[in-house]
Amino acid sequence: MSAYAAAALIVIDVQKAIDAAYHAKHGPRNNPDAEQKIAALLALWRGAGRPIVHVRHDSTTPTSAYRPGQEGHEFKPEVAPLAGETVVAKTTNCAFIGTDLERRLRTAGVHALVITGVATNHSVETTVRIAAALGFDVTLAEDACFTFAQPDFAGRLRTAEEVHAMSLANLDKEYCAVVSSAAVLAD
Amino acid sequence: MSAYAAAALIVIDVQKAIDAAYHAKHGPRNNPDAEQKIAALLALWRGAGRPIVHVRHDSTTPTSAYRPGQEGHEFKPEVAPLAGETVVAKTTNCAFIGTDLERRLRTAGVHALVITGVATNHSVETTVRIAAALGFDVTLAEDACFTFAQPDFAGRLRTAEEVHAMSLANLDKEYCAVVSSAAVLAD
Repeated sequence: MSAYAAAALIVIDVQKAIDAAYHAKHGPRNNPDAEQKIAALLALWRGAGRPIVHVRHDSTTPTSAYRPGQEGHEFKPEVAPLAGETVVAKTTNCAFIGTDLERRLRTAGVHALVITGVATNHSVETTVRIAAALGFDVTLAEDACFTFAQPDFAGRLRTAEEVHAMSLANLDKEYCAVVSSAAVLAD
Repeated sequence: MSAYAAAALIVIDVQKAIDAAYHAKHGPRNNPDAEQKIAALLALWRGAGRPIVHVRHDSTTPTSAYRPGQEGHEFKPEVAPLAGETVVAKTTNCAFIGTDLERRLRTAGVHALVITGVATNHSVETTVRIAAALGFDVTLAEDACFTFAQPDFAGRLRTAEEVHAMSLANLDKEYCAVVSSAAVLAD
């Protein structure tokens, strides 16, 4: 039996807003195939009847592309929920704060999570850190996440790959197991 | 009146264990004066009668220098709590999970936090991310924190200064205001 047979697949914030130009103002995203990796995981989870949670960001920031009522708020079509799938709306970078996600998972007897989505170093990383602190067994599918270039606090520009790799290094083994989506699909 | 007059000073995990050799296995820490910066903030907070919370890590990992019952579990003397000061014990990287920290702060009417301690990219960063999601107004005193060198997930060795600067870049403006301890002391 797959090590992930009882795990919930969590897809974080993969809405059209992530393609807004301002996210890439310091340079392009990494993992251009991340949406396809997530779609492949969704197909496996759907076929096996495993639990799926789509996390949607409902920004309260007036200038955010993630604010409800705009096209950016819509899920990207390749990873959009099917009718009847669970959608959890959040307003912060943590899917467990101000939501019923923890209660839903506990009620369903879910102890293990496979996390995907955006951005690696923001809502994904914050949610992984807290999922671990709450005692969930967390796997992060690293090629099913992505982020953007940014300067570090000392002003050195870091590419999306560098930001992603530092975020994963903080998370791996301390909060979760970082693996490829292929490893999850093959297990 | 100081912008920090009603803020609680939070000192995270500054115990002797942080000096254990294994933390520096990839290279030395940054901010060698961080303990003195925290001590200066503690002196101001004590003199002004502002709230202080010492967060203590009680590791449940058998091999951790932070496990209770060892010398490493003791607070570093230069930042140790005085009699009567609040100590909150945690077992995860988040000071708000499995503790009464949020209830204590809400009961005391505290909305603003000045956060210091170790490690920048672990318990400090996790606690800042969640404090922000919980709605606290968070300031991070960047020279009153430190971390260690580590390889990123792509295998590139990053110095402690690089790890620290990337962590601060993730946090600044998105979860908190990153400032110097001198700026807090002078306000």
